[in-house]
Amino acid sequence: MTIFITGVAGFIGCRLAGELLKRGERVAGFDNLCRGSLQNLNTVRDHPNFTFSAIDLADLDAYRKALRSVHAQEPVSEIWHMAANSDIPAGVSDPNVDFRDTFLTTFNSLILMKELGIGIMAFASSSAVYGDLGNEVLTEDIGPLFPISNYGAMKLASEAAISAALESYLQNAFVFRFPNVIGVPATHGVIQDFIRKLKATPGNLDVLGDGTQQKSYLHVDDLIDALLYIRNEAHDRLNYFNVAGNDDGVTVKFIAEAVVSRVAPGATITFGQGNRGWVGDVPKFKYSTLKLSSLGWRPRLSSVQAIEKAVNEIAEQEFGR
Amino acid sequence: MTIFITGVAGFIGCRLAGELLKRGERVAGFDNLCRGSLQNLNTVRDHPNFTFSAIDLADLDAYRKALRSVHAQEPVSEIWHMAANSDIPAGVSDPNVDFRDTFLTTFNSLILMKELGIGIMAFASSSAVYGDLGNEVLTEDIGPLFPISNYGAMKLASEAAISAALESYLQNAFVFRFPNVIGVPATHGVIQDFIRKLKATPGNLDVLGDGTQQKSYLHVDDLIDALLYIRNEAHDRLNYFNVAGNDDGVTVKFIAEAVVSRVAPGATITFGQGNRGWVGDVPKFKYSTLKLSSLGWRPRLSSVQAIEKAVNEIAEQEFGR
Repeated sequence: MTIFITGVAGFIGCRLAGELLKRGERVAGFDNLCRGSLQNLNTVRDHPNFTFSAIDLADLDAYRKALRSVHAQEPVSEIWHMAANSDIPAGVSDPNVDFRDTFLTTFNSLILMKELGIGIMAFASSSAVYGDLGNEVLTEDIGPLFPISNYGAMKLASEAAISAALESYLQNAFVFRFPNVIGVPATHGVIQDFIRKLKATPGNLDVLGDGTQQKSYLHVDDLIDALLYIRNEAHDRLNYFNVAGNDDGVTVKFIAEAVVSRVAPGATITFGQGNRGWVGDVPKFKYSTLKLSSLGWRPRLSSVQAIEKAVNEIAEQEFGR
Repeated sequence: MTIFITGVAGFIGCRLAGELLKRGERVAGFDNLCRGSLQNLNTVRDHPNFTFSAIDLADLDAYRKALRSVHAQEPVSEIWHMAANSDIPAGVSDPNVDFRDTFLTTFNSLILMKELGIGIMAFASSSAVYGDLGNEVLTEDIGPLFPISNYGAMKLASEAAISAALESYLQNAFVFRFPNVIGVPATHGVIQDFIRKLKATPGNLDVLGDGTQQKSYLHVDDLIDALLYIRNEAHDRLNYFNVAGNDDGVTVKFIAEAVVSRVAPGATITFGQGNRGWVGDVPKFKYSTLKLSSLGWRPRLSSVQAIEKAVNEIAEQEFGR
């Protein structure tokens, strides 16, 4: 059987493919190569159990044709749907970005799962479905759900479509809501932003917002471990989990200092005003991971350790040293 | 200023238009006439303050052209988005129905509101966003939200898109989650189904499910009153309300008996098995209307009274007597 990954050339997709291949699985993946890149597939492309096609999943006809061909060679048993727009600000200026890349990719995947009889969906959702609930602890069952970005809205729309599909043709679903994931190959995110800014102006780092925004970060190694752990250990029809570390996270100020200390020691950090970096950004949240720890999973790295490791990895990626 | 109504030729849309015209507003409306009908507009079509166009809102270019023309004549101040697929089982067999008619109509409306600077959205959402939460009392803030029909999923997706739009260009939104609304002009629903079955076989009424499904019903007169009340009295940026009566509702058995007694006295009622009528149907729920009553609104008719009035009205519509 084949495990099929959408967005396989993205940050999470390529790491997931690598881990599944390591575990002896047969893996096929599609990507529109819009934010993902062939370079991200360097470590898996030549593996005999891996196949890749450059397909835009928002184009149902192209997606159908390509997936049917994969399915005909060796049946697809499950779809890991990782494809999405990953650039939240881009989705604010143009809602079509998240409509196409975050929602339509899910909707089309479900249509094809129905057509081909593929019963298992594992979906990369997001903490963004919760919107801004103030100081509430974000358990998986909290409401109301009013996302404040198109990205969050289209992730919630995707969850809803998956949930409805479970009522008719889908067998099982795994919904992973993860917050900020860091590591390499980095394609976006605060660490890479800071490093690139310092590359351009090594003496100063301008930070959006006042630096007090606090978030939990998970290293990609831990994330992949958690996803596969949940896939194997959770046995409800619909399994939905917050995936994150157990701590309250770190501030933007901490990240800025870690980056400066690694790539431009002595540079000045200039903070902006307010505690939101951009429209759709949530200043601070407390993410409950009780459900995931009750299932028996623990991250190896805390938010602080994850940031330190990722700063080092992304600095190497960006500077080659 | 013009108040613009989508789905204006549908059950709720035409009644809303009538009430707004009565209150002295200028009203424009579009409808794809797929489930709505020109006949439903008989009482408003000749009103000097009313204009209508047959437009498929899922076709963004056609929608844009027509709305720009309305807006150019007399600016649109708010959109009442009532257009949606209203046939839940149809959306189960073909997810595209709710994708197009329930979600894409919302998404396109938001795009045009951004383009034209229309700041206020009033949206007909649904109790279906709650999915099946068992015996929990459904307050507006409950979670998790996992709809069990594509209809519910695309209503939740619409709410999410509206919520995200509020974070950037939208000024105010009103989200009305209503359960089963009854009255005339009836286009679908349990009362009309029963009456049509009895028209075909007057001696017997076959009921899907065991008749114990219990739901709250609101008469359309009360519904329109509640929507306009909320529009005037609620002043948050995002105002989201369950709209329903204050009672626990009535069973399918009660409705079947009311219909038989009105249109075919003496007919036998045969019940099926199980307490779900179809995939996506929620057997029983308790709908909290505390938020709406705290705002000061009360329905004039209970579920029992609403059913009795609507049975009479729909019998007249179907039999002409």
